[in-house]
Amino acid sequence: MKTPTAAFLMIGNELLSGRTQDKNLQVLARALSAHGVRLKEVRVIPDIEETIVKNVQELANNYEHVFTSGGIGPTHDDITSASIAKAFSVTLHRDPEAVALLSNYYKGELNEARLKMAEVPLGAKLIPNKVSSAPGFTIHNVNVMAGVPSVFSAMIAEIIPNLPRGDEIFSQEVKGFVSESKLAAALTEVQNRYSDVEIGSYPGMQDGNMNVTLVARGLDKTRISQACVEMQKIIDRLVAEKSA
Amino acid sequence: MKTPTAAFLMIGNELLSGRTQDKNLQVLARALSAHGVRLKEVRVIPDIEETIVKNVQELANNYEHVFTSGGIGPTHDDITSASIAKAFSVTLHRDPEAVALLSNYYKGELNEARLKMAEVPLGAKLIPNKVSSAPGFTIHNVNVMAGVPSVFSAMIAEIIPNLPRGDEIFSQEVKGFVSESKLAAALTEVQNRYSDVEIGSYPGMQDGNMNVTLVARGLDKTRISQACVEMQKIIDRLVAEKSA
Repeated sequence: MKTPTAAFLMIGNELLSGRTQDKNLQVLARALSAHGVRLKEVRVIPDIEETIVKNVQELANNYEHVFTSGGIGPTHDDITSASIAKAFSVTLHRDPEAVALLSNYYKGELNEARLKMAEVPLGAKLIPNKVSSAPGFTIHNVNVMAGVPSVFSAMIAEIIPNLPRGDEIFSQEVKGFVSESKLAAALTEVQNRYSDVEIGSYPGMQDGNMNVTLVARGLDKTRISQACVEMQKIIDRLVAEKSA
Repeated sequence: MKTPTAAFLMIGNELLSGRTQDKNLQVLARALSAHGVRLKEVRVIPDIEETIVKNVQELANNYEHVFTSGGIGPTHDDITSASIAKAFSVTLHRDPEAVALLSNYYKGELNEARLKMAEVPLGAKLIPNKVSSAPGFTIHNVNVMAGVPSVFSAMIAEIIPNLPRGDEIFSQEVKGFVSESKLAAALTEVQNRYSDVEIGSYPGMQDGNMNVTLVARGLDKTRISQACVEMQKIIDRLVAEKSA
């Protein structure tokens, strides 16, 4: 096996203005990690057709999977589906299967705005969602999803299990109340000996005290676990020195 | 006046693996909006030198201001400063002013790892921070900051007030418990008449009921306020119809 790559394109003025706090990136990132797919890049862009087209084309060329969020609702500012059709030079059409899904959900109240949500690029495959019934879609290697977190999560749950699974990416961490600059030298030495493990050092604050979390990530669970034992020893030694 | 543009480059494997929930984007986005600077693009990339160099160069060419977060700490995985020096083809040097800041903070405990945080690209101007003392820096149009939210916010507070101020971007919103697909047609009509106002429609859920927030954003406060009056009327009419 190998590790497929992915990019995430978040489309929405509300993220760039600071109106909305993103909650989707972490959900997608964790689901991809667990499935053995490596998220390599994220972009946030405004609801501008030309910008969406350019970014979708670039990311679809550079990564094995692309995920987008936002802009597939019923209002005038929802231009993602039309932009993605343009990016792949296909027409937007009203998908009968999507009409049926919406029709079943809205019963007699299926107006033109709601039918807009059934318009997808020709050749796209629908991504159903159990929360709002309005589907996302997949075209080539691009998966187009809603931005509303509950709907986004429901669509992720539909798509990810069906992607080719990569080698699982394992992660383990150790944590301690020491300053990361005190363990930097010893940690570099561990990283040098564990070049197959990706070691990250993340400082934080808790109750006014500096702490550090050391994360070991990679494909070999045993090596990760060994690196964590060594990192724990560094922390233990520094904590002992501090209280001595 | 006009509206300067900006991009934000978040550097860090921890955001791409889903380990860390980002809290910095919204802080930066709001501070820029209030200062009249328009955030046009955000990217999240891993701690890989080549990737950092390429993205910094691209964004610095395309936008008036670039902000980065992450990777300026004391450990082996902190490679942002060296990568940015490379992006601008200058050397990394130990800045005497940064050494003085760290020396004053750490007193007798200034080790090599901590001194690494005084290494900045030649020609960079330091960004002080009141939380951890380790400075960020500005080189050309790129502002390089820490990823830890408390430190990031402290650096933002130092930089933004000194940027040339753009025309203030105003924002006002109205909200109601109606489905956005019911107001889509009327809203399009308002957007068509207010082409100088950027109108966004954001559906949500509260206590199991669909709601919608309509946001008007732009440079003309009076026009925004007028658009909101019209949008409020649409919501009021739909709520009245619902309860009739």
